[in-house]
Amino acid sequence: MAGIRTDYNVVFFPSGLRGTFEPGTNLFEVAMKLGVDIATICGGQRECGKCKVIIEEGLELLGDMLPSEAAMLSDEEKRNKYRLLCCIEMPEDGRLVIRVPESSRLGAQRLQTEGLELPEDFVIDPAIKKYHIVLPKATLHDDRADEIRLLEEFKKQYGLDLEIPYEVATYLPIVLREKGGKKKDFDITVVVMDDKKVIAVEPGDTTDRCYGLAVDVGSTKLAGFLMDLNTGKVVGVSSRMNPQIPYGEDVLSRITFAKKGMENLKTVQNAVISGINDMLDEMCEFTGIKHEEIYEGVFVGNTAMHHLFLGIWPKFVTFSPYPAGVRNPIRAPAEKLGLKMHPNSTAYMLPIIRGFVGADQIAAELAVDFLNSDEVILELDIGTNTEMTLGNKDGCMCVSCASGPAFEGMMIRCGMRASNGAVEKVKIDPETREVEYKLITGITSGAIRSCSRFRKTETKAIGICGSGLCDIPAEFLKAGIILPSGQMNRELLGVDPRMREGPKGLEYVIVPAEETAIGKDIVIGQDDIRELQKGKAAMFAGAYLLMKEMGHTVETIDKLVIAGAFGSYIDPMSARTMGMFPEFPLEKIEIIGNAAGTGVRKALVSREERRKAKKYSEWVKFIEAAIHPDYMKIYPDAMYLPNKNLDLFPETAEMLKKLGRI
Amino acid sequence: MAGIRTDYNVVFFPSGLRGTFEPGTNLFEVAMKLGVDIATICGGQRECGKCKVIIEEGLELLGDMLPSEAAMLSDEEKRNKYRLLCCIEMPEDGRLVIRVPESSRLGAQRLQTEGLELPEDFVIDPAIKKYHIVLPKATLHDDRADEIRLLEEFKKQYGLDLEIPYEVATYLPIVLREKGGKKKDFDITVVVMDDKKVIAVEPGDTTDRCYGLAVDVGSTKLAGFLMDLNTGKVVGVSSRMNPQIPYGEDVLSRITFAKKGMENLKTVQNAVISGINDMLDEMCEFTGIKHEEIYEGVFVGNTAMHHLFLGIWPKFVTFSPYPAGVRNPIRAPAEKLGLKMHPNSTAYMLPIIRGFVGADQIAAELAVDFLNSDEVILELDIGTNTEMTLGNKDGCMCVSCASGPAFEGMMIRCGMRASNGAVEKVKIDPETREVEYKLITGITSGAIRSCSRFRKTETKAIGICGSGLCDIPAEFLKAGIILPSGQMNRELLGVDPRMREGPKGLEYVIVPAEETAIGKDIVIGQDDIRELQKGKAAMFAGAYLLMKEMGHTVETIDKLVIAGAFGSYIDPMSARTMGMFPEFPLEKIEIIGNAAGTGVRKALVSREERRKAKKYSEWVKFIEAAIHPDYMKIYPDAMYLPNKNLDLFPETAEMLKKLGRI
Repeated sequence: MAGIRTDYNVVFFPSGLRGTFEPGTNLFEVAMKLGVDIATICGGQRECGKCKVIIEEGLELLGDMLPSEAAMLSDEEKRNKYRLLCCIEMPEDGRLVIRVPESSRLGAQRLQTEGLELPEDFVIDPAIKKYHIVLPKATLHDDRADEIRLLEEFKKQYGLDLEIPYEVATYLPIVLREKGGKKKDFDITVVVMDDKKVIAVEPGDTTDRCYGLAVDVGSTKLAGFLMDLNTGKVVGVSSRMNPQIPYGEDVLSRITFAKKGMENLKTVQNAVISGINDMLDEMCEFTGIKHEEIYEGVFVGNTAMHHLFLGIWPKFVTFSPYPAGVRNPIRAPAEKLGLKMHPNSTAYMLPIIRGFVGADQIAAELAVDFLNSDEVILELDIGTNTEMTLGNKDGCMCVSCASGPAFEGMMIRCGMRASNGAVEKVKIDPETREVEYKLITGITSGAIRSCSRFRKTETKAIGICGSGLCDIPAEFLKAGIILPSGQMNRELLGVDPRMREGPKGLEYVIVPAEETAIGKDIVIGQDDIRELQKGKAAMFAGAYLLMKEMGHTVETIDKLVIAGAFGSYIDPMSARTMGMFPEFPLEKIEIIGNAAGTGVRKALVSREERRKAKKYSEWVKFIEAAIHPDYMKIYPDAMYLPNKNLDLFPETAEMLKKLGRI
Repeated sequence: MAGIRTDYNVVFFPSGLRGTFEPGTNLFEVAMKLGVDIATICGGQRECGKCKVIIEEGLELLGDMLPSEAAMLSDEEKRNKYRLLCCIEMPEDGRLVIRVPESSRLGAQRLQTEGLELPEDFVIDPAIKKYHIVLPKATLHDDRADEIRLLEEFKKQYGLDLEIPYEVATYLPIVLREKGGKKKDFDITVVVMDDKKVIAVEPGDTTDRCYGLAVDVGSTKLAGFLMDLNTGKVVGVSSRMNPQIPYGEDVLSRITFAKKGMENLKTVQNAVISGINDMLDEMCEFTGIKHEEIYEGVFVGNTAMHHLFLGIWPKFVTFSPYPAGVRNPIRAPAEKLGLKMHPNSTAYMLPIIRGFVGADQIAAELAVDFLNSDEVILELDIGTNTEMTLGNKDGCMCVSCASGPAFEGMMIRCGMRASNGAVEKVKIDPETREVEYKLITGITSGAIRSCSRFRKTETKAIGICGSGLCDIPAEFLKAGIILPSGQMNRELLGVDPRMREGPKGLEYVIVPAEETAIGKDIVIGQDDIRELQKGKAAMFAGAYLLMKEMGHTVETIDKLVIAGAFGSYIDPMSARTMGMFPEFPLEKIEIIGNAAGTGVRKALVSREERRKAKKYSEWVKFIEAAIHPDYMKIYPDAMYLPNKNLDLFPETAEMLKKLGRI
């Protein structure tokens, strides 16, 4: 009723989050502002159709659906009062009661921070070092300025020419004369960067407390490591979902949001900074280390994240020829970024190679250590873009291919992130087609900021995550559910009750409705298979192109190294069977986890690694797959499972022959 | 009456400034907050007794005087409801009506910004230069990062290796693609500092607009010069009283205030910054130059001002051995200081020599150009501390002597600044003792922030400023009003009606009450003469010590150069007659005005001058007069007028002999 005032005019269940908003406010924005846990891929751009909600009260207050919204909802959903949050607005009057169904919630997600430990013979040589020094006191016969006194005596004792910046000069006179407790005057510790620039001076001897932060700024997750710069040991670990996700699940959506104006860019930048600050708070609290004892941060991320983290105008990275704003390593004052570290500390971002090969790939190259390797290694980091580097100390090439987000659950109807309730493993008996699946359960990390509360309900299936999706083409192929062309096997219709005609062609039931938390079958359809095929074909083509360019074969390559979060959980055999990469013997395949995390940790505690990173950025030859004439020749064959050219997959071909599939 | 509320509970006349303040608030603070034009030397420390006001209403609401206040007011003043602002507080109830008498007002002050023009052959080579460049556009076959594109093409065209800092990298992609009007994409101007660091990139060709700021940060006044960095020409001039004055007239009082805590230091720092910003506003408005077109500021000041401007903890500069915090030149981000210039610009402060020989003296050395001089020059800049440098390109020595503030009007009962109503020139007939004096009138500069409005009343004498005070000892001596010892000539008592017994010994009337604006005689007493003697003795001793140390005499020195505001107005003959410096022939004496201003302008437009400044800071030998055994031998003789050792003043001695004074 018009004019009636309540405490709130919108409430979300099950979270109970509520508030009062102006008529006309978009409800996706409302949900973001309230911190409602809501799935989204496009970030409210009305593209992904993931933000389905049930309008329990007030449906009549909302306008009619536009065709675009209607197209993304089934008739059944429409009957059940479903709407898309991004397509509706706060009504003039009255109150909305909105239920966010399980299937539209993000939930806690599996996060991976572990990776390779630093090798035992790794030389610790951080950019930041602390030096203790006792200066002669000022007298009438030695009335040098405090700064000159420090410069001259430091040179005498440590042989280094220091530079004392303005910020430190202002308080040097006080620190020099601070007494009390263990502190004596003219007895100080100097925090020095790159053997030259003074970051801070502290009273007394504080050399034993010298810390740094390494962060892998992923588009999905942030992985932070607090390290002791004296020893190179990790003393704290924290991770978070990237708080930029509400502004777009994928980086393109985020850039689309950011490029609307400087304010938007700042919003997206502040989001990731706040996530890193939360991790800092958590690690500092856990370890008893103070924020001011963290004197440097080293960061990596793909080129888009690199720009969005630093606040570099990102628009042009998304337009051909995709030029990055900055390639070289770059130092930004922590204060300007808003990072909760020592006020005079800096954030050091590793260099990138190109628009599509970022600092995270350079970090992976540091982790693999191509520059010290005699062995020829093919490293790949699977994601929406899959970056690959091939080579050894004599030369490296890299490529990025648009493998698409299918293996991350996007574009796949039942796709989801690796969170509780995700099918992470699928086995189908090649003879009986009996389906077995394994669910992710019990992730209790409180690390996810957009998750309003952790659900205690027993886990039931919600969807299928990347590693599950990676099993499906191979399992379908072996069981004859799809043909080598990727076509779903129409002969099973009427024979296998799981195979059925769906709204978008044939589909196969992986989890029946009764075993799910969403109350409907979890299926994989012909359209989903096509997306997965496109993704794996791109990856194969990229890897094969690199091998051809460098004259390598499966035999001359010593190791296939799979890096990254997604790669950590896939079954290499499933990936190989579908032809995601050339048919390497399984013993040559190594899964190394978060290589970017390993690389950034190396860079934090070693200036040699930073020099290597710079070298990689200039020395690794980038191949632009999109315009390479061979790429488009390789790609169509790679759409087949495992490949149209079965000579490349002799073992797989033999196995499929035995099963009678080819 | 208790409880009655009015719009205000205190009002000052003649300004009419008013406000409401809490009971217990110190009235000096109240006056500062309201911007009342009030004289002060000690900055409200209850030491100088200058802030006398008449309580026209509400006297009964104030408490009784403490003995300290009572001691600073005459009986007549007490009868006339005078109080000292710094000694009284807002009463519990009721309203105060306060009149600030003419004698307690600061008034507009004569400011001096002119100085030497740059020599015609002066080579303009500023740290900041602008370069126009058109870059090849990005294509699929040339997809270099924007930053790399700029670095590589700039190197090709101009041969310089640039460094692009974080701040510039963030917006480089936008500027590269800005179109419209005269702007074309990939057509930019790069603002470069020291041939290396990029300060800014701007769309199109802006090379003709490149400006810098030079400021002489004096403890009394600020002199600002806006310069065209392409031509080295001054395009704007502005000056202000240093807005730090309310926190203490002399630098010691200001440091006493600042060292009470970081917040106080910040307050004093912000005061001078706000003064500089006001000058920037004025110059920008006048010239049509935008604040963002000012890419660098160069600053000089004595060591105390250097610290207070930069916010360097100043406490220890005031304690033996008076160590400065910083000696080397120092760059501070304009943004951190709060200067209204280009956001990525910096403030460059010239180096200092010692606690008592600051960047202003180095600037004076640049103005005199010792390093290029064959002639031997003695340069002196008269102030509370008088700094002197003697030498030529083969070597220089400098000294600072505590000449005291007497010649600036402090410690002198009728002393005042060089503002309207000040006696700036005194002539006394040696025979008849007829007194002639000249007043400063008609200064209409609106440059003074603490001056609430300009007085239009006809000027009458208020007090005596430095140049007037400088005449008095010489004129008194010649007229026999004082003896060579400085003793007032008691024989004139009863003979000359102007000579009389005052509360502090003998005194001589310079301006009778009826010719003043303050309604009482302007006199010089024995105590005043003593202060002037002490000051001139210190200066002589410093100069003579330098000459002795370097083996120079009046004959071997080619020039005596007097720099600084005070020095610009004094009569060299008067100064020489009283023995303020050795008896140079008048033709060897040169008055060069604001040498610090000239030096800082040179440094703004020439990196060679900055190298020279650095060299002076290391190369000019500082002599600590206070602990030099000769200084205390020279000083007592120099207390005499002109000197006890008349061999040093043959001409003066002869003249005095002729007059029968010796």
